[in-house]
Amino acid sequence: MNEPTTVRITHPLPTLAEPVFTLSEIGGLRAAGVAAGIKASGRPDVAVLVAGAPIACAGVFTQNLFPAAPVQVSRQHLASNGGLVRALVVNSGNANACTGDLGLADAREMCDRVARAVGCRPDEVLVCSTGVIGHAMPMDHVRAGIDAALAALGSDRDAGRRFLRGIMTTDAFPKEAGAEGPGVRVAGVCKGAGMIHPNMATMLAFVATDAVATPDELRAAMPRIAAQSFNAVHVDTHPSTNDTFLLFATGTSGTPLAAAEEHVTRVAHRLAWLIARDGEGATKVTTLRVRGARSAESARDVADTIAASALVRTALFGNDPNWGRFVSQVGNAKSVRSVAGLRCVLQGVTVFADGAPTPFDRAALSAAMRAEDVALDVFLAEGDGEATLMTSDLGYRYVEVNAEYTT
Amino acid sequence: MNEPTTVRITHPLPTLAEPVFTLSEIGGLRAAGVAAGIKASGRPDVAVLVAGAPIACAGVFTQNLFPAAPVQVSRQHLASNGGLVRALVVNSGNANACTGDLGLADAREMCDRVARAVGCRPDEVLVCSTGVIGHAMPMDHVRAGIDAALAALGSDRDAGRRFLRGIMTTDAFPKEAGAEGPGVRVAGVCKGAGMIHPNMATMLAFVATDAVATPDELRAAMPRIAAQSFNAVHVDTHPSTNDTFLLFATGTSGTPLAAAEEHVTRVAHRLAWLIARDGEGATKVTTLRVRGARSAESARDVADTIAASALVRTALFGNDPNWGRFVSQVGNAKSVRSVAGLRCVLQGVTVFADGAPTPFDRAALSAAMRAEDVALDVFLAEGDGEATLMTSDLGYRYVEVNAEYTT
Repeated sequence: MNEPTTVRITHPLPTLAEPVFTLSEIGGLRAAGVAAGIKASGRPDVAVLVAGAPIACAGVFTQNLFPAAPVQVSRQHLASNGGLVRALVVNSGNANACTGDLGLADAREMCDRVARAVGCRPDEVLVCSTGVIGHAMPMDHVRAGIDAALAALGSDRDAGRRFLRGIMTTDAFPKEAGAEGPGVRVAGVCKGAGMIHPNMATMLAFVATDAVATPDELRAAMPRIAAQSFNAVHVDTHPSTNDTFLLFATGTSGTPLAAAEEHVTRVAHRLAWLIARDGEGATKVTTLRVRGARSAESARDVADTIAASALVRTALFGNDPNWGRFVSQVGNAKSVRSVAGLRCVLQGVTVFADGAPTPFDRAALSAAMRAEDVALDVFLAEGDGEATLMTSDLGYRYVEVNAEYTT
Repeated sequence: MNEPTTVRITHPLPTLAEPVFTLSEIGGLRAAGVAAGIKASGRPDVAVLVAGAPIACAGVFTQNLFPAAPVQVSRQHLASNGGLVRALVVNSGNANACTGDLGLADAREMCDRVARAVGCRPDEVLVCSTGVIGHAMPMDHVRAGIDAALAALGSDRDAGRRFLRGIMTTDAFPKEAGAEGPGVRVAGVCKGAGMIHPNMATMLAFVATDAVATPDELRAAMPRIAAQSFNAVHVDTHPSTNDTFLLFATGTSGTPLAAAEEHVTRVAHRLAWLIARDGEGATKVTTLRVRGARSAESARDVADTIAASALVRTALFGNDPNWGRFVSQVGNAKSVRSVAGLRCVLQGVTVFADGAPTPFDRAALSAAMRAEDVALDVFLAEGDGEATLMTSDLGYRYVEVNAEYTT
């Protein structure tokens, strides 16, 4: 019962137009990724990033009340090291979540092991994990993997690519982005945020720039950058126990962060777009822009309410210009007081205004929705609050992937 | 692109064990349902319920900021008639929503027409509509349908069944329930709450008892009854513009409402269960019970957060005892402060306690989830707040039904 039969999926991979650097090509960084046997598949599962000297770092972590052990340890380390770090160690295949005190000890041991090899304090090392939850870490594999990765560090493009392979779980494609401005480089990688077999996965994102920043400057920039990227992605209404976004500034370029921030934001936005694009079974990324709300918070509430609707997301999957679903979700947003003056514009075509649907060519608009980027603009008349959100559509493959029995 | 291929669905219909009366078998009521051509299919689409004298009535309506015209009119009538009504008129096939002033005039005209025939004030008539939104009502058909229905009123069982057929839209099966206690009868029908082709549908529910109640007594009981039935259903995170639950007390039995309330609640609960059971492509109803929350509101927040997760709902569809998804959603509920002491019990089997998964037989538990009724019990240790919610699972057919192009 409930067995899926054949379901045909259209899932073209996005092409990256922009210049791409990998993390290892940012001055001052070396990277590696190895296969340590944590994943049954034999794919790479341990990755390390090492700086030649302490570098500024800022982080954003999951708000889930069940933060995984590595999230707890990395938070503690960022609090005690003053935002200066030497290394990052990541494993995939096991999330080290819901693992109690043993999990905390394991996460700390991972940092200790890297710190001894690099020659720094343990709290100068951050740790991230992603994979199955509720299982003890296979520490023999993890230890051997850390040692092998530390022995394989490199600063060429391939080293960064191996790091990226080491953090992936169920990603349908590797996610990387790079940008450069006058005298500054930015590179980033991420994985996620599909939450699948057997429990739930995670969004991990690491962005590095060679700009100069103090930890305070980086911390101050972080909310602005996250708001336009990883905090503006709504793949599911289900944040994970392990979600982590780390930003590093090595300083080797001599360019101040102020000049680099727009490029950092561009890279982070592209990575977030790639995460939405790789939502399980997703065929497109819909950028939801809400304007005219009572406040920025209300605008975000409207965007979240629209994006949380499985009805909206299936309409996007079906290329269905189903204005009733969008409009009625605005009416369901808790922070909205009045829908007078509401206007909805889908792919540039007004579908609803002044309390009533507007005439439009459904077939043409449906065809226009068969794009990798779909824009849904919602205009309220309550104020000047704005918010932007990227979301995935919901199709057959989402069900197929997520209904699978865990054993 | 995105076309579904064959998807096999298991969708057994529930069997009703309890005694069933139809609305027309409640003393003092007559009912009818006719096909008036509003639906292209030619199926019944106009239904009327008429009382021989003014009877007590209480209503609960959608909280959506886009209430349909009939919701606005029925709300006004219940406010001006003091909770005493003579008739209800319902049409299916057109929701009369997002139809502006014309829609309001049409809804009022429906009440006027019934009032003239019955010989009562227009505000003693309530009106409900369900079907496509954003289209003007085909009033020629509606008028003829009302006249035909009023000419066909009956008080036998079949009359109530014809009423029920007249309110259905995309329901996979008719939804009715009845109960009797010492000297009292209760009957109810409903339709809903699938939101599908071409825009969105609606939950309509009508329950009548022959108990004696003043409008004030009925209004006082309504929140208790709704809280255990229609307000405890979470089929989608997407309330409609037309949702309406009306409760009538004809008084012909002479039994006070206090003695009848438990039977009314039982009927309303069964109808709500049937709505969850008929969630698009649903294969089961999961009853989520949250206990030990800080407050009843927090318990409901936890239940809503769990039920809103497409990951949770696909796990239920897949008979997947995926505790990680349930537990992590508790950690995402905004009102929860501490997950210490959290325990999750699925179909009577503890799957998570004291911060860690507990050993259980996955294959056996998965087999136990292949039931029409699944119980998920969540215990917090923050207080004594409780909430219960019924929710549908999310499977292939949900996507198939909802991704369909509207034209």
